Amino acid sequence: GIEKFMREDDIKITTPGVALGLAYTTVGGEVLFIEATQYPGKGDFKLTGQLGDVMKESVSAALSVFKSKAADFDFDLEHLNNHDIHLHVPAGAIPKDGPSAGIAMFTAITSLLLNLPMKSGIAMTGEITLRGKVLPIGGVKEKTLAAARAGIKTVILPEDNRRDLEDIDPQVQKKLTFHFAADVSDVLTIAFGQPRLKAAIKKLKPHPRKATSEKK
Amino acid sequence: GIEKFMREDDIKITTPGVALGLAYTTVGGEVLFIEATQYPGKGDFKLTGQLGDVMKESVSAALSVFKSKAADFDFDLEHLNNHDIHLHVPAGAIPKDGPSAGIAMFTAITSLLLNLPMKSGIAMTGEITLRGKVLPIGGVKEKTLAAARAGIKTVILPEDNRRDLEDIDPQVQKKLTFHFAADVSDVLTIAFGQPRLKAAIKKLKPHPRKATSEKK
Amino acid sequence: GIEKFMREDDIKITTPGVALGLAYTTVGGEVLFIEATQYPGKGDFKLTGQLGDVMKESVSAALSVFKSKAADFDFDLEHLNNHDIHLHVPAGAIPKDGPSAGIAMFTAITSLLLNLPMKSGIAMTGEITLRGKVLPIGGVKEKTLAAARAGIKTVILPEDNRRDLEDIDPQVQKKLTFHFAADVSDVLTIAFGQPRLKAAIKKLKPHPRKATSEKK
Amino acid sequence: GIEKFMREDDIKITTPGVALGLAYTTVGGEVLFIEATQYPGKGDFKLTGQLGDVMKESVSAALSVFKSKAADFDFDLEHLNNHDIHLHVPAGAIPKDGPSAGIAMFTAITSLLLNLPMKSGIAMTGEITLRGKVLPIGGVKEKTLAAARAGIKTVILPEDNRRDLEDIDPQVQKKLTFHFAADVSDVLTIAFGQPRLKAAIKKLKPHPRKATSEKK
Amino acid sequence: GIEKFMREDDIKITTPGVALGLAYTTVGGEVLFIEATQYPGKGDFKLTGQLGDVMKESVSAALSVFKSKAADFDFDLEHLNNHDIHLHVPAGAIPKDGPSAGIAMFTAITSLLLNLPMKSGIAMTGEITLRGKVLPIGGVKEKTLAAARAGIKTVILPEDNRRDLEDIDPQVQKKLTFHFAADVSDVLTIAFGQPRLKAAIKKLKPHPRKATSEKK
Amino acid sequence: GIEKFMREDDIKITTPGVALGLAYTTVGGEVLFIEATQYPGKGDFKLTGQLGDVMKESVSAALSVFKSKAADFDFDLEHLNNHDIHLHVPAGAIPKDGPSAGIAMFTAITSLLLNLPMKSGIAMTGEITLRGKVLPIGGVKEKTLAAARAGIKTVILPEDNRRDLEDIDPQVQKKLTFHFAADVSDVLTIAFGQPRLKAAIKKLKPHPRKATSEKK
Ligand SMILES: [Ca+2]
Ligand SMILES: [Ca+2]
Ligand SMILES: [Ca+2]
Ligand SMILES: [Ca+2]
Ligand SMILES: [Ca+2]
Ligand SMILES: [Ca+2]
Ligand SMILES: [Ca+2]
Ligand SMILES: [Ca+2]
Ligand SMILES: [Ca+2]
Ligand SMILES: [Ca+2]
Ligand SMILES: [Ca+2]
Ligand SMILES: [Ca+2]
Repeated sequence: GIEKFMREDDIKITTPGVALGLAYTTVGGEVLFIEATQYPGKGDFKLTGQLGDVMKESVSAALSVFKSKAADFDFDLEHLNNHDIHLHVPAGAIPKDGPSAGIAMFTAITSLLLNLPMKSGIAMTGEITLRGKVLPIGGVKEKTLAAARAGIKTVILPEDNRRDLEDIDPQVQKKLTFHFAADVSDVLTIAFGQPRLKAAIKKLKPHPRKATSEKK
Repeated sequence: GIEKFMREDDIKITTPGVALGLAYTTVGGEVLFIEATQYPGKGDFKLTGQLGDVMKESVSAALSVFKSKAADFDFDLEHLNNHDIHLHVPAGAIPKDGPSAGIAMFTAITSLLLNLPMKSGIAMTGEITLRGKVLPIGGVKEKTLAAARAGIKTVILPEDNRRDLEDIDPQVQKKLTFHFAADVSDVLTIAFGQPRLKAAIKKLKPHPRKATSEKK
Repeated sequence: GIEKFMREDDIKITTPGVALGLAYTTVGGEVLFIEATQYPGKGDFKLTGQLGDVMKESVSAALSVFKSKAADFDFDLEHLNNHDIHLHVPAGAIPKDGPSAGIAMFTAITSLLLNLPMKSGIAMTGEITLRGKVLPIGGVKEKTLAAARAGIKTVILPEDNRRDLEDIDPQVQKKLTFHFAADVSDVLTIAFGQPRLKAAIKKLKPHPRKATSEKK
Repeated sequence: GIEKFMREDDIKITTPGVALGLAYTTVGGEVLFIEATQYPGKGDFKLTGQLGDVMKESVSAALSVFKSKAADFDFDLEHLNNHDIHLHVPAGAIPKDGPSAGIAMFTAITSLLLNLPMKSGIAMTGEITLRGKVLPIGGVKEKTLAAARAGIKTVILPEDNRRDLEDIDPQVQKKLTFHFAADVSDVLTIAFGQPRLKAAIKKLKPHPRKATSEKK
Repeated sequence: GIEKFMREDDIKITTPGVALGLAYTTVGGEVLFIEATQYPGKGDFKLTGQLGDVMKESVSAALSVFKSKAADFDFDLEHLNNHDIHLHVPAGAIPKDGPSAGIAMFTAITSLLLNLPMKSGIAMTGEITLRGKVLPIGGVKEKTLAAARAGIKTVILPEDNRRDLEDIDPQVQKKLTFHFAADVSDVLTIAFGQPRLKAAIKKLKPHPRKATSEKK
Repeated sequence: GIEKFMREDDIKITTPGVALGLAYTTVGGEVLFIEATQYPGKGDFKLTGQLGDVMKESVSAALSVFKSKAADFDFDLEHLNNHDIHLHVPAGAIPKDGPSAGIAMFTAITSLLLNLPMKSGIAMTGEITLRGKVLPIGGVKEKTLAAARAGIKTVILPEDNRRDLEDIDPQVQKKLTFHFAADVSDVLTIAFGQPRLKAAIKKLKPHPRKATSEKK
């Protein structure tokens, strides 16, 4: 797993566009960095990190959820016509797949486009649907163990995985705070905090980006 | 099946763009959520959920049926040039195929574009043809059993599956009301109710969307 | 075969864009519905129904024959730049291939674009070439048997299959009228009738569609 | 082979865009119809007839040779921006491959675009290069036999196949006239006749097509 | 390996767009030339050298890191809309893969677009992430051996490979100076030198390129 | 090999866009004709002759080298936006691969775009890199033997293959003059002669092509 290379400062997130997901492979749980960035462009969406079909579709769904909620964020979708987005999941040589990084993908995209870094020390796992529901996932025990080992303090799980809490190792339970999310609005509240989120949305309103796009 | 994760409130549909289909796999019947959403864009149509070739073609036919009937709905097709549609069928990791979700796809698209949520508690199954005919499907017994277990109250079946009614478990028969559809207009009447459908079409006429597209 | 699901009223064609083809598989002959529809768009041509490479090329040839004869029909090809065409061959899950539906594809396209429904009770089989010639096909015996069973009254065969007439079951011969076509103009005469065809072409001349396209 | 279906009138070519090639398969020689047609469009080039990679590249080379010689023909290449070309090789279900139809492809394209039908009763075989050279091919014996059987009177062979003349059956030799071509200008002279070719080129100069394209 | 063909003057880099990477294959370490060039075009990005999926994604990440830092370089991204970039890794017949050339790709792109040749005698290895972090790589022993043999004087390694220093052959250690980079700004400082880098960025400000793009 | 079909006049090159390469297969050396042509178009680049991935990339590199040196040639790259280039390597049915035709590809493209035929009787082999370096290739013995047999008088080899001179058959050595190239400027000097090259570049300056493109 990548986490053996993680230094303490790695999980301190200070850049917008980054979220921490939790994956579950045959060799155990892993912390996944989701990195999203943007720059002026023609509206392309690039996706790298040896992602499988299911994970690619998961990102596609996450992006669509953001877009269909753009009005709620006072986010002008015109921005996406003159910027490219690139989402990458290191390490670059390790194939990754599955839908369970869905809410982390959504959080990374939202963080990027609202220009709002996630709160530090939070990792999350959960499938996202197009309506913004959070579907349950597997490997809760292994994922939370990996999170604890990597120094994560807070974990977001799907509401429907609440019943899996009892399987988590007591040592791990002590180290982590758990939040359960039924839909993506729950996720955003935990990942960003309601006041920070509101402030970021407020900032977006008379945004310089819009000026740029109108210039064009 | 996904339905083991469904909570009571899940089949209460309140969002436009959602329909419930019934699938039939080697392990029995299943309730499929069809989720469609839209947002300002360039007219792309995205399709996710690990759908096989036949199911993808089925969505394509469903969309074309809607488009060729757009005039009947007073729906301005220009709208689809400046909006993207995304249709997704969770759970994201489960491959799905076959033509039997055709009328559910059509209903989800119609619900989305007429901005009209389906009536709650209805699931449906049937292949759609480009003329809007509803072709018979297999697995009626298993599909209706899954519907009943998921708390569905009403099931729409193809007219040509009327003869399969006798194979359905009596317990299931008691829990469900059956409707038979020969073409998609029958489907819409049951799924939305004639008065609600007429009201939604009426609303579309002097629609703000049209204004947006003309602005462009 | 699909015909076991066909009800009496199914072969009564009242919509432009529909033609009946005859296919020949390892399990015998079959009646194929060819459904074509159109709607305002950007000139796309969609093709569904699990069609194999040869059948896809056959549709492509059929469309090109129509286009290269457009002037004869007083049909303004500009129309195809602002409309999409979708051609579908149910049942959606059954793979289909081969060139023998060529003239039925051509007839469906012509019916759609001239806005002229085929005469009822006619099915046809024959490969089409780019010059509009009709090439002979196999399975005449099985195809005509399937046509008779489905209630078809008239069958169009390639001129070069005239010699296969003697192989057809006498019972089937009694139920069917046979026409032989050497090129596509023979096909159109039988499928639409010369007076109806002329009237439809006449109608096309000062056509509202042209106005629409000029508006743009 | 397709030639068993050919009737006498089939090799009388009266349409521009048609040429007869000679193919060589494991079951012997065959006469190939090359059919090219055009219609107003956006400059697409369609290629059908179950052609293999080598034959597709051969058509591509043939088209490029025509284009690079367009000035010699007083042909305005602008025409190809507002017309589509479709080239088809029946029978549609038979896979075909190899470079030996190259000069027949070139002749069909030239016939189509100069609006000049080939002289009747001529078939040809030879690989074309981008400089317009004619490269030698195999199967001369089998191809000429097939030509003779199909009623062909004149055959064009590559200059470098002159040495294969001695292998041709004496009966076949009596029925056929042979021409040898070193480059495509030799081919055109034989296929169209110098005076007809010159007249066609002269006609192209103040051509109504040009008017159409300027209108746009 | 390619280095057996390298002559002394080969590692003297005088052209912008060239960087030296270090690869690690089953037969040992290798020095990779990364060559990037640009010319007026439509914004295409070409990638050659038989690169595998992971290496292609690595280049994509390197380019995105540059783009997301373009403002820091006073680089006008508009330039990339009217120029093509081509990145090639000789030798052309040898398949290459893996993420460890990431920072060399980034350096080649930066060198090209800032019009600033790398300092001579430096080779580097390290995976790049979208945030510009440098991830550790394998094969440090073999790569540094290859570098020393090719006459390289300075090697840049990821910060997290510092612990691998002890495995490097003492003879090799004597010949090479090692730098460790935690993120891409560390890489640029070593590869170009801070003063040269600042001077190059300063030069970009009132750049003739911008004039060209505005002309358009 | 194709050379058994070559007649004496074939290696007399009089057309711009043609170069002779040397290939090396399991059955020995071969002379390859590289044919490039151009015509008014939309800037497409077509590549035919059953070329493998490595050879295709080699052409791509050759084209980029030309483009990045266009200013040195006083060549206006705008020309490539309104012309198509087609590069073909006969014989069309023989698969070809490898990087060793790189400098011949570059020479053919340069010859075409500078409108300058190569000097006659010269063949060449060598991999090209994006910086215009010439990398060594294999099969020098077999390739030079094939060149001598085909009547070639002069062969260009990579500088780094100078050491392979001793392996060439003495008989072949007598028939051929050898030149060694370290980069593409060496190649051009030998292939065209410095005075002819300068004259061609001079001619390009006030070129009618530019007028054509501006007209547009
Ligand atoms: Ca898959
Ligand atoms: Ca709930
Ligand atoms: Ca399939
Ligand atoms: Ca009915
Ligand atoms: Ca095929
Ligand atoms: Ca006839
Ligand atoms: Ca091939
Ligand atoms: Ca000659
Ligand atoms: Ca892969
Ligand atoms: Ca650090
Ligand atoms: Ca390959
Ligand atoms: Ca040197």
